Amino acid sequence: MRRTLTLALSLLLAPVAFAADKPTTIDASDIRIAEQLRDKALKDDTAFDFTEGLTTEIGARLAGGPNDAKAREWVIAKFKALGFDKVWTEPVTYPKWVRRSEHAEIVAPVSQPLSLLALGHSPATPAGGIIAQVIAFDSLDALKDTDAASVRGKIVYVGPRMHAFKDGHDYGMGSTLRTRGPSLASQKGAAAFLLRSAGTDTDRLPHTGVTQFADGVTPIPAAALSSPDADQIERLLKRGQPVTVKLMLDCGMEGEFTGANVIGELLGSKKPDEYFLMGGHLDSWDPGTGAIDDASGIGISVGAAHVIAQLPKRPARSIRVVAFANEEAGLYGGIAMAKANSKSIARAVLGSESDEGADRIWKITASVKPDARAAIGQIADVLKPLGIEYDPNAKASGGSDLSAIHAVGMAAISLEQDATRYFDWHHTANDTLDKIDPEQLRQNVAAYAVSAYLAAQAHGDFGSKPGEWAADGH
Amino acid sequence: MRRTLTLALSLLLAPVAFAADKPTTIDASDIRIAEQLRDKALKDDTAFDFTEGLTTEIGARLAGGPNDAKAREWVIAKFKALGFDKVWTEPVTYPKWVRRSEHAEIVAPVSQPLSLLALGHSPATPAGGIIAQVIAFDSLDALKDTDAASVRGKIVYVGPRMHAFKDGHDYGMGSTLRTRGPSLASQKGAAAFLLRSAGTDTDRLPHTGVTQFADGVTPIPAAALSSPDADQIERLLKRGQPVTVKLMLDCGMEGEFTGANVIGELLGSKKPDEYFLMGGHLDSWDPGTGAIDDASGIGISVGAAHVIAQLPKRPARSIRVVAFANEEAGLYGGIAMAKANSKSIARAVLGSESDEGADRIWKITASVKPDARAAIGQIADVLKPLGIEYDPNAKASGGSDLSAIHAVGMAAISLEQDATRYFDWHHTANDTLDKIDPEQLRQNVAAYAVSAYLAAQAHGDFGSKPGEWAADGH
Repeated sequence: MRRTLTLALSLLLAPVAFAADKPTTIDASDIRIAEQLRDKALKDDTAFDFTEGLTTEIGARLAGGPNDAKAREWVIAKFKALGFDKVWTEPVTYPKWVRRSEHAEIVAPVSQPLSLLALGHSPATPAGGIIAQVIAFDSLDALKDTDAASVRGKIVYVGPRMHAFKDGHDYGMGSTLRTRGPSLASQKGAAAFLLRSAGTDTDRLPHTGVTQFADGVTPIPAAALSSPDADQIERLLKRGQPVTVKLMLDCGMEGEFTGANVIGELLGSKKPDEYFLMGGHLDSWDPGTGAIDDASGIGISVGAAHVIAQLPKRPARSIRVVAFANEEAGLYGGIAMAKANSKSIARAVLGSESDEGADRIWKITASVKPDARAAIGQIADVLKPLGIEYDPNAKASGGSDLSAIHAVGMAAISLEQDATRYFDWHHTANDTLDKIDPEQLRQNVAAYAVSAYLAAQAHGDFGSKPGEWAADGH
Repeated sequence: MRRTLTLALSLLLAPVAFAADKPTTIDASDIRIAEQLRDKALKDDTAFDFTEGLTTEIGARLAGGPNDAKAREWVIAKFKALGFDKVWTEPVTYPKWVRRSEHAEIVAPVSQPLSLLALGHSPATPAGGIIAQVIAFDSLDALKDTDAASVRGKIVYVGPRMHAFKDGHDYGMGSTLRTRGPSLASQKGAAAFLLRSAGTDTDRLPHTGVTQFADGVTPIPAAALSSPDADQIERLLKRGQPVTVKLMLDCGMEGEFTGANVIGELLGSKKPDEYFLMGGHLDSWDPGTGAIDDASGIGISVGAAHVIAQLPKRPARSIRVVAFANEEAGLYGGIAMAKANSKSIARAVLGSESDEGADRIWKITASVKPDARAAIGQIADVLKPLGIEYDPNAKASGGSDLSAIHAVGMAAISLEQDATRYFDWHHTANDTLDKIDPEQLRQNVAAYAVSAYLAAQAHGDFGSKPGEWAADGH
């Protein structure tokens, strides 16, 4: 606290720095324009059309897969057709992981096929597969506390259930299990790792997602079972007999791939170098068509930019829409952009990424400087008729890729979607266009249009500064 | 009213021959016992345990497949363990159909994998698959009205949507499309047939089910697309360009297989040759584990028999529980039983099969002789506290297999489950145990226990007679 205070006092003495300390304000006339934008967005289907097009004409977009480049070209063409003032790409390099096939079955004490998906970055099983006894744990902690001797050579299964919440908070547990579980199981000598899918549904459709092997840890085959298949294993284990599973995964790393972030910009009329940053990620997992994760995220930003572009005049600052490369395997697009812009991050006055589906936005939060709180309150007032509440006490990371950019100093808002159903479909074959309600999607567009326009018109900044927010804990 | 009165008076004078015309009645003391049975059944988990066991230890039970005999042995052993007085089998022979694999994709104007399942009794595609243009129809009637010239060599797709209703009536349309569509498409010279799955969900899980090729019609490959995949095809067709699909089905008929109906009986204490008939079917489709279709159906009957068996004394008539062989491909088990019992059908005093899932029963209907209506009313009164309404004007077929037995003269009741969600999961990989609510299942057991007990105790019959009900129109 002291250190921050000293810093603040020292800033008071510096002439240039004063600009940052004047309360940020928004003109009443801009509020009126934002209200009109909001109402116009509620009737605009650009976001849906974009999402429909990307999912229908390209479909699944596994990073590094055959649709990575195809999707990129599709988005570049679409951005150009939509009339962005400037469209460009920035290369992003990431490891390439390939899924060829997976097959699994319970072979004892009964015979049952299992529906599962290899986790991203999982290695393959040896030819002929792994046939081993299953050892089950309720949680990652239970696995941590277990003797390596009891795990060695076995297939570790960890089976907690995720529950549905509006804020989707159970995904914290689910994704931690998926990313860290295989590594931990490997350290204990396990032959392979299975988890109950990190999802809230009971469909026979497993949820894939990336896993991470810590440095020095031998990667082991890792896969997610659909919830009914996890139940099946648990019921058999309850009977007290050893349960043996045969697991065959054909997948693995194949060097590197260079994709790109695709960026479209409406050029600001007064401060074109400063910009509001929004977007979604271009890649998706491969079982579905990446509709809610995350074609709709790009679509929402595109839709918002589109209604802003219809105004007689461009806003003062630029509006930048990004389709990020390879978010799924580790925020590669966001991290690349953060690195490239860390020194000039103050230009990114505020940002928000949509990556939690396309259900209604119900809450706005912000991580901005105190002097910009009132301006966020002004934005929130325009969002209120959309059913969006403002929590001035919660922080915002800006969303997946933007969290990396926020971490190098960009002020951020989070426009939080209702995630009650999101994790029913997330990372599964069920992530398809039919899961998107066009009306809900338009509400999202309205919220992004209002936020982008008002941030681009605000007098004063929101606190973006190199090194700021690094300790925000996102 | 007059006629009934005259009849009633005349009955008083006729000691034996008039027995069939005396109003069927149920003693008040039996009503009290039925009420106790009902309340006991609401606390009994025999049905769930049976369903859990069959789905967990055997799983999918495709007729003629490797689990056909296994499941039969499992049920025989379970019936014996549950203490039926008599357990036996009756052989049933049916065509054997085998599913090996299926693969399909849109190859033009874009590339998209398709999630589908071959229909039962579909032949395979030629080696290398079929690559053909898709021609779409909204309904079977639209296909009927089309010139063969426009269909020849193409893949016919028919895409109406089923909607969810409590009485599941849209399955009439859906199943008609599935059973008759391929035959009709073949007659018009189509290369293959695809339909939007006969289901009410939007999951990426296709609904399989049997199709039928009319005599003299060349069987063509036929498969069901998941609803999101059907949407995908329709969206591409709307763009106005030809849509080409590659279809590879490896499946087909492989001679005949002899399975069996498995029958368990509680022997009647006074009229052991007469019986109440209930059950479900033993086979299931192969993608799921056949929990709601129809392990639960057998489970409900077994549970009902179990609580009746706990009474100090067996009811007057026998209680017969049947696990029918191969319902799915054409009521083979029911038809075999109907043929074998057509002359002695009067012994089957009343029957009801459970084959519409395991949600709450909401309605009872009956096809019985007029003089037994009052007794059905007595049964309905005991069911009322379970939330079951009685519709005295609707007919009853007795349910899938029993409809064949009803058609040769057995009086029938239908205990209708709420089918609102049934067709979300029916014939898909999602037909798994987790879809069954144990409390709903117990309500079903209570309804069957009451019906079986009171029918077995009733004075007089319900109208079963060779040749009766043939014109009932089920």
